[in-house]
Amino acid sequence: MSFSETLSYPSFNFDILHRHAGTQARVGKLKTPHGTIQTPNYIFCGTKASIKNLSPAMVKEAKTDIILANTYHLMIQPGAELVAKMGGLHKFMQWDGPMMTDSGGFQIFSMGHGSVADEIKGRSNKGRDKSLLKITEEGASFRSYRDGATLTLTPESAMTIQRQLGADLIYQFDECTAYHVDREYTARSMERSHRWGDRCLSEFERTHDGSQALFGIVQGGVYEDLRAESCAYVKDRPYFGTAIGGCLGGSEEEMHDVVSWCMPQIHPDRPVHLLGIGRIIDVFNFVKMGIDTFDCVTPTRIARHGMALIRGLPDERINLKNARYRDDPDPLDPSLDISASRDFSKAYIHHLLKAGEMLGMQLVAQHNIAVMNRLMREIRAAIESDTLDSLQQEWIPA
Amino acid sequence: MSFSETLSYPSFNFDILHRHAGTQARVGKLKTPHGTIQTPNYIFCGTKASIKNLSPAMVKEAKTDIILANTYHLMIQPGAELVAKMGGLHKFMQWDGPMMTDSGGFQIFSMGHGSVADEIKGRSNKGRDKSLLKITEEGASFRSYRDGATLTLTPESAMTIQRQLGADLIYQFDECTAYHVDREYTARSMERSHRWGDRCLSEFERTHDGSQALFGIVQGGVYEDLRAESCAYVKDRPYFGTAIGGCLGGSEEEMHDVVSWCMPQIHPDRPVHLLGIGRIIDVFNFVKMGIDTFDCVTPTRIARHGMALIRGLPDERINLKNARYRDDPDPLDPSLDISASRDFSKAYIHHLLKAGEMLGMQLVAQHNIAVMNRLMREIRAAIESDTLDSLQQEWIPA
Repeated sequence: MSFSETLSYPSFNFDILHRHAGTQARVGKLKTPHGTIQTPNYIFCGTKASIKNLSPAMVKEAKTDIILANTYHLMIQPGAELVAKMGGLHKFMQWDGPMMTDSGGFQIFSMGHGSVADEIKGRSNKGRDKSLLKITEEGASFRSYRDGATLTLTPESAMTIQRQLGADLIYQFDECTAYHVDREYTARSMERSHRWGDRCLSEFERTHDGSQALFGIVQGGVYEDLRAESCAYVKDRPYFGTAIGGCLGGSEEEMHDVVSWCMPQIHPDRPVHLLGIGRIIDVFNFVKMGIDTFDCVTPTRIARHGMALIRGLPDERINLKNARYRDDPDPLDPSLDISASRDFSKAYIHHLLKAGEMLGMQLVAQHNIAVMNRLMREIRAAIESDTLDSLQQEWIPA
Repeated sequence: MSFSETLSYPSFNFDILHRHAGTQARVGKLKTPHGTIQTPNYIFCGTKASIKNLSPAMVKEAKTDIILANTYHLMIQPGAELVAKMGGLHKFMQWDGPMMTDSGGFQIFSMGHGSVADEIKGRSNKGRDKSLLKITEEGASFRSYRDGATLTLTPESAMTIQRQLGADLIYQFDECTAYHVDREYTARSMERSHRWGDRCLSEFERTHDGSQALFGIVQGGVYEDLRAESCAYVKDRPYFGTAIGGCLGGSEEEMHDVVSWCMPQIHPDRPVHLLGIGRIIDVFNFVKMGIDTFDCVTPTRIARHGMALIRGLPDERINLKNARYRDDPDPLDPSLDISASRDFSKAYIHHLLKAGEMLGMQLVAQHNIAVMNRLMREIRAAIESDTLDSLQQEWIPA
């Protein structure tokens, strides 16, 4: 196992164009083989190679720049070899813009321990199906939720699979530790994730053709010294980008602390991704700390429960199933330039949701994506004019 | 109760433009306040004011001319008053083309007896929830599937509700008898449906503003003399159009017989709708007997089970869940000018269906609608060139 310190990414580039006065917020330009996007930006989840119930045309109509798919789900169904045989993820799902895949680690360990998302956000993890079988130095084995077969993911196979999928931005294999694990476990796990990261770099370099760029992941849980150690690890390796991962704590304050420990210690010139966090308030808070990209299932997941994101509400969202919308003739937001937000009354969408009509979820999902993309556009403009605080007041009045 | 024999429909018109040599097939032009369509044509089911999982833009992209919604479902949720308050069905669901509503009778009686569709098609009606409570001369009472409340539909309220919904083509209230009922019941029911029809005409004329046109429905089950009596009833009344309804029999042959008894006896100049029948083979068979419009849930319902309609197959369709499509790189039909049929591989749609991704059903539903609309366009052209038989060979090779 070895990799060169000067591993380079000629088809990729990250330029910081402007920094907001008094915060760490920055506007950047991230170049990939499938296009250049401006940052800060939001990466929407197409877990199983599909943004829930939306065609790529609808995702684009909502002005989306970049999406992701999950290695874990795709290796189970339809299998990465199949995606490769069909020409890779871009062609398979007909998305020709920039794309990211994670390494699969998050899902393996979140299903092993209950949901890590639940842990991070302080919810119960009772009653979850635990599919993680074993973690060794070699990798992790787990049961397929599809057919119960035993599957193994190693740093090397995580790279092979992400090569087969063919996204632009790919991720090192890591263990995402849960909130309830102790300092000692977190430390041992982090050190193993670092060794896994080196094996990923080695395997990545072996097959490096310039079409993909690799992100390292900062682990270390809620422990400041471990986070410092992990920041140093990622900074010192020839990763293209930095992701902040693992358990970010059980409260907003803890999450804020963890990210604030990391930001001064990571590589200052590389794009920084915050894994799995993405309410509107989070985006404001972490953009100010220097985060460049976000991903979260929230915008599409809450749509399935009838929640529509609305600019200018303290709660960020409304529940369209609420009886108050039964006869509301107004659309969700006519200033958004898509039919879902402009042409249909809340009363109609309320009816669709009550009647169990899938079109209801489809309209709200497209609307929520359009809202998040508008948020990111306005945030980039506000960074350039040093007016983030007043923009935040407009989006989330205190 | 009374109505004028000369009830007229100045905003509507039906012209027969061409008749196919050697069959009763005809091309016509049906004018409504929301546009003029060519016939034969196919009316797609938007049961609860939504074509399953497709936005109106997608329905139009598939070249749809006309859709329907169901009075029964809409009176239960969200209620016809609410739809009226929101400006009527066209505005509520953002469909600005021609639209039809049925009277609600079919669903009341199909849920009362088990499914009439099952009866017509010879399937078992065991285990269905029976919600019909009582049929009297006044009307029918039934239990709401939403909250168990007792609801009543009468000829007069069926007209009021269809006025509130505001579709272009509306239907008399009738009882749709099941296959298992005997001749005596069928006769009594038919006579009552005729009396209900007269009450519908009376109520319709009382509120006639020219924006809607009323269809009468031929009943009489599988009994030739009753069908003759019912054809005479509808022909002698000032309905705008004729629908052939009720039980059409337990086999293809019986269905064919029932329609063949009716066609020579109905009004020759009015548009003729065949209720609830709509496979590709049915469309060919009944177009040749003179049917002008069809409706059926089949194209969208089978999509939810992964069945895609394909031109040129004896079975009309393929099952995309079948393992043979796992690595099929070809699209469903690139000659159809929509992304769903042209851009996505069968392998991708197979994956979406296997993974339970709603986008799979959405793509297949839009494809199936596009196929049926293409069928109707080609059928109209074939009638004009007297080549229906060879077109049928192309669509469904023997």
